[in-house]
Amino acid sequence: MTYCVGMSMEEGLVLLSDTRTNAGVDQVNTFRKMNVFEKPGERVMVLMSAGNLAITQAVVGLLRERIDSQDESLLTQVNMFEAARHVGKCIRAMHEHDAAALSAFGIDFNASFILGGQIAGEAPRLFSIYAAGNFIEATSDTPYFQIGESKYGKPIIDRIFRWNSSLSDTAKCALISMDSTLKSNLSVGLPLDLVCYRRDSLRLEGRARIDADHPFFAELRRQWGERIKQAFSDLPDLDLGTCVGAGK
Amino acid sequence: MTYCVGMSMEEGLVLLSDTRTNAGVDQVNTFRKMNVFEKPGERVMVLMSAGNLAITQAVVGLLRERIDSQDESLLTQVNMFEAARHVGKCIRAMHEHDAAALSAFGIDFNASFILGGQIAGEAPRLFSIYAAGNFIEATSDTPYFQIGESKYGKPIIDRIFRWNSSLSDTAKCALISMDSTLKSNLSVGLPLDLVCYRRDSLRLEGRARIDADHPFFAELRRQWGERIKQAFSDLPDLDLGTCVGAGK
Repeated sequence: MTYCVGMSMEEGLVLLSDTRTNAGVDQVNTFRKMNVFEKPGERVMVLMSAGNLAITQAVVGLLRERIDSQDESLLTQVNMFEAARHVGKCIRAMHEHDAAALSAFGIDFNASFILGGQIAGEAPRLFSIYAAGNFIEATSDTPYFQIGESKYGKPIIDRIFRWNSSLSDTAKCALISMDSTLKSNLSVGLPLDLVCYRRDSLRLEGRARIDADHPFFAELRRQWGERIKQAFSDLPDLDLGTCVGAGK
Repeated sequence: MTYCVGMSMEEGLVLLSDTRTNAGVDQVNTFRKMNVFEKPGERVMVLMSAGNLAITQAVVGLLRERIDSQDESLLTQVNMFEAARHVGKCIRAMHEHDAAALSAFGIDFNASFILGGQIAGEAPRLFSIYAAGNFIEATSDTPYFQIGESKYGKPIIDRIFRWNSSLSDTAKCALISMDSTLKSNLSVGLPLDLVCYRRDSLRLEGRARIDADHPFFAELRRQWGERIKQAFSDLPDLDLGTCVGAGK
């Protein structure tokens, strides 16, 4: 599987993905699921993917082919809405190309994407793009999207992350959400790819490949584990008698 | 959906279930998913269920019918292993009775159970029973089982719960695991049913129906929410520059 999370806030965008792929437990590999498309000073786009690796790689391949051919591409779209539509178009092209052949083997056309970025002239935007090529956009009410193994890491985001969180806090929240997922699900694995994009910078400042020995991540995991245990042991004791008395 | 967790430890057993059922978002109801079978002083058994409500209710109905008919039943089994086999047998009887008819409507025979309890003469035991009627038993290495919407509440259990945790700490951990699930998934809902069983007591001491205004649960949720936020804000700051520098 995969876990990717994209978070949108006043200060910018945070995107985080793992790199584990597996086709059964005896075919576990490392593949980058985060792709950056950038024209520094004009546009920055980050695309993350989950699902069937052959499909998602092909979609990214098509996106890059369009860029190389100097044709209509992610680098020519006038805004992020059109960029999301362009990704959707490439997904549909792959569906047309592959879905019937996959179906003959009983394989679903399974792919989902998160696209975040900014094009000069508008605010940063974040999209969740489905296998059908349609998409939704994040808002300040629901400022994040997850794809892949999303459930383990959702509670901490729901508790902590808000539209007005800082870029640094959001990146920490994403890393902790990932840590919880790594701890509980073997199909999500290190290293991670992290992008922190500051609004209106129109270039990537913060981009990291994070492995188990990454000093900040290692320290964050250690401290978070300890603090959670401490927070738990500071909770009031459960009086089993009272608990029953108050119920029925 | 449903979330149920059964936890086994040196001191005894904790079992916790929600009560929400839904068939689409316009058919949301409250049903007890926890059933107690008890002969105080001799045996205590708690069965929790997830899956198709018609199937799980029918299985429990069959188990109760067997008890009422003074036939071979949960109350006559000589040990918990045989009790788990008896539950499995009733699941298989329902499968034989219903699976073909369900299949004609494209409905899977979807049901899973957690059975925990103690019969005089052996230690408390905990089983996860599948729709096929087969089952696995918890051990000190893997002392808990979840059924239903299990992923949201798994990280906190993996961080906190151990075979040598106290009964009170285990119940708190189960409640926090449930709280995380309630926060992130609408298909799991209050009230909760909680059983805390102390080893060798052979009767239920701690059993509660827990709603939003249950004093301990309300306070636990409030404090945990605050402590998590505090633990998060106490974490070291992420220096975006350093983070990049340390990566590539």
